[in-house]
Amino acid sequence: MSELRKDPVSGRWVIIATERAIRPTDFRPEPQPVRGGFCPFCEGNEEKTPPEIMAYRERGTQPNTKGWRVRVVSNKFPALRIEGNINKRGEGVYDSMNGIGAHEIIIESPKHVVSLTELEDKHVEEVLWTYRDRLVDLKKDKRFNYGLLFKNVGAPAGASLEHSHSQLIVTPIVPISVMHEMSACEEFYKYRGRCLFCDIVQQELSSGLRIVLEEDTFVAFAPYASRFPFEICVVSKTHSSHYENLQKLEAEELAIMLRSVLLKLEASLEFPPYNYIIHTTPFSLGEIEHYHWHIEIIPRLTKVAGFEWGSGFYINTVSPENAAEFLRNVSIEKKSEAIRS
Amino acid sequence: MSELRKDPVSGRWVIIATERAIRPTDFRPEPQPVRGGFCPFCEGNEEKTPPEIMAYRERGTQPNTKGWRVRVVSNKFPALRIEGNINKRGEGVYDSMNGIGAHEIIIESPKHVVSLTELEDKHVEEVLWTYRDRLVDLKKDKRFNYGLLFKNVGAPAGASLEHSHSQLIVTPIVPISVMHEMSACEEFYKYRGRCLFCDIVQQELSSGLRIVLEEDTFVAFAPYASRFPFEICVVSKTHSSHYENLQKLEAEELAIMLRSVLLKLEASLEFPPYNYIIHTTPFSLGEIEHYHWHIEIIPRLTKVAGFEWGSGFYINTVSPENAAEFLRNVSIEKKSEAIRS
Repeated sequence: MSELRKDPVSGRWVIIATERAIRPTDFRPEPQPVRGGFCPFCEGNEEKTPPEIMAYRERGTQPNTKGWRVRVVSNKFPALRIEGNINKRGEGVYDSMNGIGAHEIIIESPKHVVSLTELEDKHVEEVLWTYRDRLVDLKKDKRFNYGLLFKNVGAPAGASLEHSHSQLIVTPIVPISVMHEMSACEEFYKYRGRCLFCDIVQQELSSGLRIVLEEDTFVAFAPYASRFPFEICVVSKTHSSHYENLQKLEAEELAIMLRSVLLKLEASLEFPPYNYIIHTTPFSLGEIEHYHWHIEIIPRLTKVAGFEWGSGFYINTVSPENAAEFLRNVSIEKKSEAIRS
Repeated sequence: MSELRKDPVSGRWVIIATERAIRPTDFRPEPQPVRGGFCPFCEGNEEKTPPEIMAYRERGTQPNTKGWRVRVVSNKFPALRIEGNINKRGEGVYDSMNGIGAHEIIIESPKHVVSLTELEDKHVEEVLWTYRDRLVDLKKDKRFNYGLLFKNVGAPAGASLEHSHSQLIVTPIVPISVMHEMSACEEFYKYRGRCLFCDIVQQELSSGLRIVLEEDTFVAFAPYASRFPFEICVVSKTHSSHYENLQKLEAEELAIMLRSVLLKLEASLEFPPYNYIIHTTPFSLGEIEHYHWHIEIIPRLTKVAGFEWGSGFYINTVSPENAAEFLRNVSIEKKSEAIRS
């Protein structure tokens, strides 16, 4: 079983996956995802993945067979496992617990598409509902306190299979990045009585300088202090603390917005490797005034070197204003056709 | 001039380098460092770098000519510049200041060596003294509050030139990673009245499980919650808050230890790309009881994907105990000869 350990200095938790014996010689440059060839995520290969946890599928079709549109399975090499007790414990200055949690793969299409943008808006919406359904299901388990939804696209962003998919890692503790965000938001709320994200949205909409795309309910913008070139934040214009409380009309709009923003990135940057991550409120908290769920989209165009690792202090060579202007002006209608042709 | 901007949500500062106009099409896979060919850091090419800030050189030789052993110059493409006022300012919820600071390159040898380990112990010691001299000099400037010394080795670790060198970035604000470490250490000190690092060192020495190398004054160990395979922390066994207060005998020993640890990494992992980073106490603070300077060495063997970026929650497939045992048992005498032959 893997172990969760806390670094007392940084406060960061780490999953030590002790199950596999690895020798130093195992560290060779990682292979690129195979283009073409056999894909375990494609329709017809259902028996090549761990058993289905859930799927949106045609009525009358059986689990682990054809007929699905979005399918969720356990990761074949999970970082955390669902079975067992957490057993929190200490050892001198150190803290640890068992590596209990969930590590799921959301396969976004039965066809071998390599980008979420190749799917219809309605299909993207189903992916968003899958995210929600999994959070709602897993938060019932009182051992768990956080669900992190994310997507790796391209080898430089950590993808090992090209077939379009997302991942969900559910952990007993709240990840430190979310803790730090929540502390800052709580401090702001104590001082000013408002949600920091709501204030940011107001300021961004009123200046317009960093807006990438605006719809009725959601807005996409380049964060004022973007760490990376073409970083984008997608957030709802009205306050909402939990992703899983998404309304039906919001989900429809979010699907269109997410697909449009990704199309803009793909058109501008020639299909860059990227990650996106959903930050939402921990399971144990009800509706709160001071934290606001959001999606962070990070194109992986530059390498992260010692300075960034050592300081958390990033150097970004593209101003968010320039990035936003460029992305605003990219026409995705034409590009989208070009991609599909 | 570049700008320092604070992200109000994460608390992180970012350097927005607005001086260069960059188009999205500029983001192509980064070229690998050229092996062989022209090197601006080699002896005889002094005029190809910005002017010398300082050098340890033979008596009677002139700056920017041959005769140096360690040489410090400004980065040709500095993230921050030394001239100007900081001009701290606010804009709604956002905070910023001018991109004032220093960005220096420490060229570690006049010969074209690609690893610090190719230098004699005495020469490595001179590199360590150079680090110290630059910190001592730059902390006199009251605009600055932190000096981050680091090293990128290999393209995956962010190096753009292979000639062995380190970098120093001096900033008006304390990097957030150091702030977080200092907060945790301060909390521990308030609660237990001891330095957290001193306690960690005691526990590591008494268990021995994660020790890589122990000398009289310094110890190298694999951190209990290592984020990365073969991560190593080098720290003094007695309390010391500031790197720049290094004693002569300590510097001698640290040079031997650092070179030995890097030799072990090179021998075990076949010259991995890596970063090391020195975390020390901010300029504005005198000798303090609760923070302890240290070196973090991070081999860059694995890719960092969306989960890590989004959560600060790392998955490490090699337990620190296994990594330490492996490194302890690597004989560097033989390997060191092998490398040199």
